[in-house]
Amino acid sequence: MQTFQTLDTPAAIIDIPRMHRNIQRMQQRMDTLGVRLRPHVKTSKCLAVIDAQRAAGAQGITVSTLKEAGHCFAHGINDILYGVAMAPGKLQQAFELRVKGCRLSIVTDSLVGAEAIVSFGREHGHRFEVWIEIDSDGHRSGLKVDDPTLLHVARTLHEGGMQLLGVMTHAGSSYELDNPEALQAMAEQERRACVVAAETIRAQGLPCPEVSIGSTPTALSATDLEGVTEVRAGVYVFFDLVMLNVGICEPDELALSVLTTVIGHQEEKGWIITDAGWMAMSRDRGTQKQKRDFGYGQVCTESGEWVEGAVFEGANQEHGIVSTSEADITRRYPIGSRLRILPNHACATGAQFPEYQAVDAEGRVQVWGRLHGW
Amino acid sequence: MQTFQTLDTPAAIIDIPRMHRNIQRMQQRMDTLGVRLRPHVKTSKCLAVIDAQRAAGAQGITVSTLKEAGHCFAHGINDILYGVAMAPGKLQQAFELRVKGCRLSIVTDSLVGAEAIVSFGREHGHRFEVWIEIDSDGHRSGLKVDDPTLLHVARTLHEGGMQLLGVMTHAGSSYELDNPEALQAMAEQERRACVVAAETIRAQGLPCPEVSIGSTPTALSATDLEGVTEVRAGVYVFFDLVMLNVGICEPDELALSVLTTVIGHQEEKGWIITDAGWMAMSRDRGTQKQKRDFGYGQVCTESGEWVEGAVFEGANQEHGIVSTSEADITRRYPIGSRLRILPNHACATGAQFPEYQAVDAEGRVQVWGRLHGW
Repeated sequence: MQTFQTLDTPAAIIDIPRMHRNIQRMQQRMDTLGVRLRPHVKTSKCLAVIDAQRAAGAQGITVSTLKEAGHCFAHGINDILYGVAMAPGKLQQAFELRVKGCRLSIVTDSLVGAEAIVSFGREHGHRFEVWIEIDSDGHRSGLKVDDPTLLHVARTLHEGGMQLLGVMTHAGSSYELDNPEALQAMAEQERRACVVAAETIRAQGLPCPEVSIGSTPTALSATDLEGVTEVRAGVYVFFDLVMLNVGICEPDELALSVLTTVIGHQEEKGWIITDAGWMAMSRDRGTQKQKRDFGYGQVCTESGEWVEGAVFEGANQEHGIVSTSEADITRRYPIGSRLRILPNHACATGAQFPEYQAVDAEGRVQVWGRLHGW
Repeated sequence: MQTFQTLDTPAAIIDIPRMHRNIQRMQQRMDTLGVRLRPHVKTSKCLAVIDAQRAAGAQGITVSTLKEAGHCFAHGINDILYGVAMAPGKLQQAFELRVKGCRLSIVTDSLVGAEAIVSFGREHGHRFEVWIEIDSDGHRSGLKVDDPTLLHVARTLHEGGMQLLGVMTHAGSSYELDNPEALQAMAEQERRACVVAAETIRAQGLPCPEVSIGSTPTALSATDLEGVTEVRAGVYVFFDLVMLNVGICEPDELALSVLTTVIGHQEEKGWIITDAGWMAMSRDRGTQKQKRDFGYGQVCTESGEWVEGAVFEGANQEHGIVSTSEADITRRYPIGSRLRILPNHACATGAQFPEYQAVDAEGRVQVWGRLHGW
């Protein structure tokens, strides 16, 4: 078995004990708030991680692609919410999964989308389970609570013979916040919008049993989730520098890092060249507009201590450029020595790797596969 | 066989006729300038593309990872330059490829790196073929021509029994230029630095037969390559919006695009929501600081005409947000209709996909696999 010391670089390292603590933290919070946790697995796309979430109490999962749905269903996971508005052209794929026994639920936020689902369902004699997406914060998709289309969509689905499961929303703009009061207010805004949407639908005598909300920042900031039945959150499983800036995690909760090797220097410029460029880190610069800009990631020693003053300022495909004002960099960071980089955005950095190197408390490594593509 | 019309989205589309024209253009230019072309295959990481480059006259390839080297060698490609400074910990992997018969050449730009190569080579009774990397423009790695270390490295390799193949450089800062005079000057700067480095080494009685330079912008701007033996260029095979801004390609040469489906709207904001987010496009915003900022990519119709005024302004993991001031967007771009997005950076966007959908002049689709990971 490989150990941390023998790993080739660049490598995506999961700190297993930290990951388990993160999973416990979110699950306990959801248990306390009295809601189910349906983790969004787009962060890890990794069955071993998902198994750990389910073992801790998660009920069902959220996916970002139908490929994830198929992959997880083949692994025995049955209750799957596909969290992206259903394209009519993907209905066949969803149908095939459902026919095989996968309880895959789908999402729409438009009359055209709802009609396509109804039409396909009728044609195939199939009753899809459908969520209506609510726009709780204006950041992306969904119907506003006071948009009359909301009831048209609900009625279209119900009268068209589909199973209207409920309403769902994602307050993605919580990622732009960084103080507890604003986060708590956003969490309440997310909850309220979705609960009011459900009540609006129910007031018309239409079914709307479920109310699904969630993002990692709001899930960890909410103090009351009355009316909510489940929370979807994803990035909490690893956390990352964006979440650190948001203020909902601590440095010792960052469970994903990239192990890299020093391959050169430009000493007069204070540059350390590494073998982790954007292919390893991704081009995500999510901290650029936050209170602390971490460049392409926070540079740490091989054992994980932060190297203050080292700035990961440039990334070519397979070259990282770390700048520092420290003296004598060729001795401090000799060629062949290794660093670890904490990513801005765990979802984006993880996606660059076909597998994770999951390291336990004793430094033993397990290779955990990761899904790629659509 | 699938056709363009039946493809699922998001999909990475290669326009095969454009790709062949791009390959011809570069090959003819190199033939005219009297140098060999050793294409950098990090752009496509795709054997079908590499085969087309070789069929057109390429001699040898450049790779950015040893995994690419092994993949191409298994496919029958023998002459491979690994273009990233050799990490001592990767020598075993390079050695194993060479023992199998792969003429893999490696790169160093430091005395420590050279000594590690010599030490490993002696220990294993093996003579590596080695390039010394020259810094011709200050943008990243390499030894300056007037750095006395250059000769130390050359002597260390030669006297240590390694085969000193030559010097190589990459004027990556050419990507930051956008007028023909500056590009031509950069091409000459790149050529001169590398030729002078070779002459400096030869003047000491050391061997330095090869002079390898190249980037797509300088390769297409150079008017004279005296003293150069080969050119390495990569992104020309697809080109992209960054290269369009640099001014070395035309819109009808952009051979890579992402096919996407409209999945929703926020009509009052003029937003079209698509199923191509950053997972499909990558987070590369390479045009952000160029003369025209293309957001996350140029929006085109399904058949490839540019949609002027449509701005791909936001990208979540599986959601793209395209903003337009056009009226009646739900009818013009209905749910289920499709768009094509030209990427900022072909290398980064391609890397998000496990395979390309390569479309010929008749609209027939071939699936071309793409290498992922290290």
